[in-house]
Amino acid sequence: MHKLVLLRHGESQWNKENRFTGWVDVPLSEKGVEEARGAAQMIAAEGLTFDVAYSSVLKRAIKTLWIVLEELDRMWIPVTESWRVNERMYGSLQGLDKAETVAKHGEAQVKVWRRSYDTPPPAMTEDDPRWPGKDPRYASLRKEEIPGSESLKDTVARFLPFWESDIAPAIRSGKRVIIAAHGNSLRALVKHLDGISDSEIVELNIPTGVPLLYELDKDLKPISRRYLGDEEAAKAKAQAVANQIKAR
Amino acid sequence: MHKLVLLRHGESQWNKENRFTGWVDVPLSEKGVEEARGAAQMIAAEGLTFDVAYSSVLKRAIKTLWIVLEELDRMWIPVTESWRVNERMYGSLQGLDKAETVAKHGEAQVKVWRRSYDTPPPAMTEDDPRWPGKDPRYASLRKEEIPGSESLKDTVARFLPFWESDIAPAIRSGKRVIIAAHGNSLRALVKHLDGISDSEIVELNIPTGVPLLYELDKDLKPISRRYLGDEEAAKAKAQAVANQIKAR
Repeated sequence: MHKLVLLRHGESQWNKENRFTGWVDVPLSEKGVEEARGAAQMIAAEGLTFDVAYSSVLKRAIKTLWIVLEELDRMWIPVTESWRVNERMYGSLQGLDKAETVAKHGEAQVKVWRRSYDTPPPAMTEDDPRWPGKDPRYASLRKEEIPGSESLKDTVARFLPFWESDIAPAIRSGKRVIIAAHGNSLRALVKHLDGISDSEIVELNIPTGVPLLYELDKDLKPISRRYLGDEEAAKAKAQAVANQIKAR
Repeated sequence: MHKLVLLRHGESQWNKENRFTGWVDVPLSEKGVEEARGAAQMIAAEGLTFDVAYSSVLKRAIKTLWIVLEELDRMWIPVTESWRVNERMYGSLQGLDKAETVAKHGEAQVKVWRRSYDTPPPAMTEDDPRWPGKDPRYASLRKEEIPGSESLKDTVARFLPFWESDIAPAIRSGKRVIIAAHGNSLRALVKHLDGISDSEIVELNIPTGVPLLYELDKDLKPISRRYLGDEEAAKAKAQAVANQIKAR
């Protein structure tokens, strides 16, 4: 039996300001740093440790991971960062205040962009100063791999190849794995592991800073899954994520 | 022309307590954290940045590197940690207070152990609870690779294969590299790059937390080398390292 820990990064500066973040490289807030420390303590209290770790190329996930590895005294394990673990790319909505976007486009439209499975938000174009193709961390991507915007379906499609090529083989080889990632890249994985339907996955919220422990059989089919720490607290945090969409 | 930055970690808890550290995984002191931040600022002020980074499997070097990468906003670059970048393994002296060791064995003997090129200190044996073979981070090493103790010559011999296999090819391919490491693994590299003799290298001291910038030609021969920041301050710090050997 294999154990796998998924961890959504703690609160970022823009979560706090209620703005669409996506691929914008926003740091953790002070509260986010505290959440990461809390997650590390929950993992340590469970007696879990890791042989390898995966993260996105975004600092809010990497910093969360570093805090966990420092707390667990495993700073020396191999860490692989991949753009395929990134948050969903929010296109031209990136940087906008969620409540303002709701006021401008209407809650129904924003809900479609945030919560439909396969409708991407308006795309960011290559002439946009914020276009990821200008960022050196994406220099190794083929141009057609750089998204102008993504639906959750698109996020699943670019996350799963990395799961298959890198993460799943590490787990199968007996390595204990943690993935420090984002709300939507973790949804992509949970959808895959638990066979959740396209319509159900959009209603599933993953709270920040609460480790999600999977036990997997030898074929990587889930035997069990649970949030570490206080289950009720995790549910309340997940609900808070759902409430972000409400206009202030 | 290639640029390469070498950085010795900031002060550790045991540097502060004047104890032989070697492969013992001691954290940075508060001053060490400050030194790492200072090093990061010197690197940023020089306009340098990095595409890949290397470190040892010891947290004082890894933490120093993380502080630099966070300051430079390059947390996402690939980092490779290798035991071959570790500090010299100090055998059974590890954990002993330097002044006490001098009082017990005499300054001449301790100077031989610290500063001769090819005389290792007394070896740690496999039945010692501190033997590195019991530590999971060295689980992938063949038994004959795990040192009981090392001379600087031994450190050179196990560091250079990693330089040749991993670091040098990265530099040749045009990648900008930082190596966050230790007094003796950096001596090993400086000896190799600058062709320093066995007798001269033992007198060369590398200060903590001061980035050493090499400019290398296409064959990785040094064109120039200098410490960033205040050259006089770097010299004074190197002298402080030499003074550690004096009995208190």
